[in-house]
Amino acid sequence: MDPTLEKLSARVREVVDLRHAASILSWDERVYMPPGGSAARGQALAAIQRLAHERFTSADVGEWLEYAKAHADGSDAHSEATAILAVTARDYDKATRVPASFVSELAVATSAAQHAWRQARAEADFSLFAPHLDTVFRLKRQYVAFFPSTDHPYDALLDDYEPGMKTSEVQAIFAGIRPRQVALIRAIAERPQVDDRLLRLPYSEPALWDFGVEVATAFGFDWTRGRQDTSPHPFTESSGAGDVRITTRFDPQEPFSTLWATMHEAGHALYEQGSDRRWTRTALEGGTSLAVHESQSRLWENLVGRSRPFWEHFFPALQRRFPAELGGATLDEFYRSINRVQPSLIRVEADEATYNLHVMLRVEMEIAMLGGEVAVNDLPELWNEQMREYLGIVPENAAQGILQDVHWADGLVGYFATYTLGNLISVQLWDAFQSVEPSRDDLMRHGDFSPLLSWLRREIHQHGRRYMPQDLVRRVTGSGIDPEPYLQYLERKYREIYGL
Amino acid sequence: MDPTLEKLSARVREVVDLRHAASILSWDERVYMPPGGSAARGQALAAIQRLAHERFTSADVGEWLEYAKAHADGSDAHSEATAILAVTARDYDKATRVPASFVSELAVATSAAQHAWRQARAEADFSLFAPHLDTVFRLKRQYVAFFPSTDHPYDALLDDYEPGMKTSEVQAIFAGIRPRQVALIRAIAERPQVDDRLLRLPYSEPALWDFGVEVATAFGFDWTRGRQDTSPHPFTESSGAGDVRITTRFDPQEPFSTLWATMHEAGHALYEQGSDRRWTRTALEGGTSLAVHESQSRLWENLVGRSRPFWEHFFPALQRRFPAELGGATLDEFYRSINRVQPSLIRVEADEATYNLHVMLRVEMEIAMLGGEVAVNDLPELWNEQMREYLGIVPENAAQGILQDVHWADGLVGYFATYTLGNLISVQLWDAFQSVEPSRDDLMRHGDFSPLLSWLRREIHQHGRRYMPQDLVRRVTGSGIDPEPYLQYLERKYREIYGL
Repeated sequence: MDPTLEKLSARVREVVDLRHAASILSWDERVYMPPGGSAARGQALAAIQRLAHERFTSADVGEWLEYAKAHADGSDAHSEATAILAVTARDYDKATRVPASFVSELAVATSAAQHAWRQARAEADFSLFAPHLDTVFRLKRQYVAFFPSTDHPYDALLDDYEPGMKTSEVQAIFAGIRPRQVALIRAIAERPQVDDRLLRLPYSEPALWDFGVEVATAFGFDWTRGRQDTSPHPFTESSGAGDVRITTRFDPQEPFSTLWATMHEAGHALYEQGSDRRWTRTALEGGTSLAVHESQSRLWENLVGRSRPFWEHFFPALQRRFPAELGGATLDEFYRSINRVQPSLIRVEADEATYNLHVMLRVEMEIAMLGGEVAVNDLPELWNEQMREYLGIVPENAAQGILQDVHWADGLVGYFATYTLGNLISVQLWDAFQSVEPSRDDLMRHGDFSPLLSWLRREIHQHGRRYMPQDLVRRVTGSGIDPEPYLQYLERKYREIYGL
Repeated sequence: MDPTLEKLSARVREVVDLRHAASILSWDERVYMPPGGSAARGQALAAIQRLAHERFTSADVGEWLEYAKAHADGSDAHSEATAILAVTARDYDKATRVPASFVSELAVATSAAQHAWRQARAEADFSLFAPHLDTVFRLKRQYVAFFPSTDHPYDALLDDYEPGMKTSEVQAIFAGIRPRQVALIRAIAERPQVDDRLLRLPYSEPALWDFGVEVATAFGFDWTRGRQDTSPHPFTESSGAGDVRITTRFDPQEPFSTLWATMHEAGHALYEQGSDRRWTRTALEGGTSLAVHESQSRLWENLVGRSRPFWEHFFPALQRRFPAELGGATLDEFYRSINRVQPSLIRVEADEATYNLHVMLRVEMEIAMLGGEVAVNDLPELWNEQMREYLGIVPENAAQGILQDVHWADGLVGYFATYTLGNLISVQLWDAFQSVEPSRDDLMRHGDFSPLLSWLRREIHQHGRRYMPQDLVRRVTGSGIDPEPYLQYLERKYREIYGL
């Protein structure tokens, strides 16, 4: 190998190794760290992230990249080496545009913002958080200015989570979804409501955990390359395809949330576990975007895990685990219960029919705040108005409204859209799979998920970050991100459940 | 603060932060990591250790240290700043003497040696490990040559674990212990043996775990700054005084080993948790040597945990947890059982009377091998001879003999002596505590460990690495490391138990 290219590869390997280390430290912080470890953990993570940033953005990396581009074999635009070089160069360009002093300033500001957000949420007092939110958006405007001008300043923020995605595309997609999802919810509200009390019986936590493990195993989660623990907020953390960890939580008020979390996070984890070994310790390791990642989690959680065929297979096993609670229930009662539609205040508890509306409201606010079109102090009222319009309900206080999510306090602006884009992609993939595997639903009925996983492995997982997200979606489905399949899926599903 | 001194402090903080990160990665590797994470973990740990080494040994650190020494306030030889500077300079000197190329060569050699050792032990075939052991000792001789000449080449190895300790001192101490411990064991062998079958009943693992937690809590282990998990080999890992983790294990053949491990590791952890906040993120963080560390673990495990006064307090609680197993046992039966002397083949299972002889045998071999006085192939026979002479028993195979410990495969030569030195120091401290607290045994009888912990905090723990280990022992006990108190303790204890 050319010695300059080897230097470049070695440096990227070192940076990826440091990121793997940071990933384990971050996992531990949320799962097992005793409270007294907090200060030292913050310092250790900061040291590793700073070194990873310094080592990646140093001038020699820029020189090696220029050399690599100049010496690239133009005859093979689709080679692995070309793909690795392109993504590495894109990462380098983004990482070097933002000065270290700004990164520090943002870190200090978001650290203070998180602290204020926690207090504000505990006291349901938005005014405690408002000045910090103002600062975050001021800094985000500065951040945008480090990048080449785009059609819309929000494009630069979206690009951090969903490379290549434009604000105008998101707005067009949302405009297509909004009226039909609002209409669907209103139609459902006029029908007799589903009784889901059987989901709130005193289910045993270990028995639900075991059932979740059974399901994740059936999905194909590789326990020799991963594990499951509990944490207050379920998440997936990967330090390479050989060590992908998921968490779940147990809430006695909503016992089945532990199962949905396991399925959702297992979906993320299958993506990470499926990344091809060729990309190990290169820029191509991992998932290509948050939306594509979310398409995997939502596919397994909703399209598989809340489907009737899935439960035709698994409901008897669930009944055997919970004879007292479910022995007398029918599959139909259970299926309807887990698919009950109920406009609610909290995004993470929202059902499939209402979830996207929670997301849209946030994205619209982000775009308006970034453009300076709304003042921070007007946000709570705007929130309530939009909730009333989309979902017909209004939070009693800011803790159940604008203060419910940590994203903005963390400086994550441009992130929310990926939740909805992920939902849309999940159904596009679900349909594409059925077109190559017409017996898809029968496979679910037999608990045979390996054809689905093999197809996802081949079409999505193995590629890591090789393809831009929209290119990947187009390769697999023949279309860009398209809301129509999702809307049809929702309408079909709830037509049957609610007799619309 | 002087900007040059601030640069030095900042660099040390960064290096300590990286070590904290490595500590968590290493803990996770042994406690929770799925097997598939092994390769990525090795790479992540190597990257962090390499960067920590590079950042600490860079030429600017040497210049800052020279500047700091030149500008030191000579009027205050005992100040904190002077202590921090002295230890930092000592660490720098040691770290810069060994070339990076040698560190890599040793890492490669020990990685291969560990692999071979595992296989050799599994097959009880020393010949598989012998060439690797030869290489390790060849490299250790090279390592010694990087340091200034000492009275004995082994001094340079000892110094890595027990700063300032000389081979001649260790040999003199061992020569004093050997005949009296051998004589003690022979005298015990002639007495009626203790029946300890009540320790091998089918005790419940969770109940023993809970009892261990109760004991560690009574010792003063701070659970907000630590935790306990299980691992095949119990250990303590600290990433600063705010996050100190211990592990234990459960062996149904030796159920109480889980309790001894908890007490032993809690002793190490109390030392780490007691390091003064002033030393946080400086070279003075942590314990001053392995022997002083072992003095803490052995004090809590043996002098407290295997004493009659301790069990006068805790035996009723243990009986309440295990009414079927221990309801009919007397305190005396239990006390004698847990102090049974039985020459055995495996060091980590050895009782207090025989343990040091296991250590001496290893240390004598290390010294002879380093000096080239014995050939690697003669070691198994030498092992058997020494075992026969010291303990009157001979292993059936190398797995129960020379292959039982991982230390040499890990490149840890000079380490074993600290186990015995720690035993000796533990009794010196135990006596010193009684001289200031004559009611020591009554405190144990009442389960009141806080005066002991406060005394250890003040005399040992808070100082971190401020004092050289032998200076610290002398400060507290008025004497250097001295075997006499330990021998008297053993003789007194077993005289009573065995009616010698």
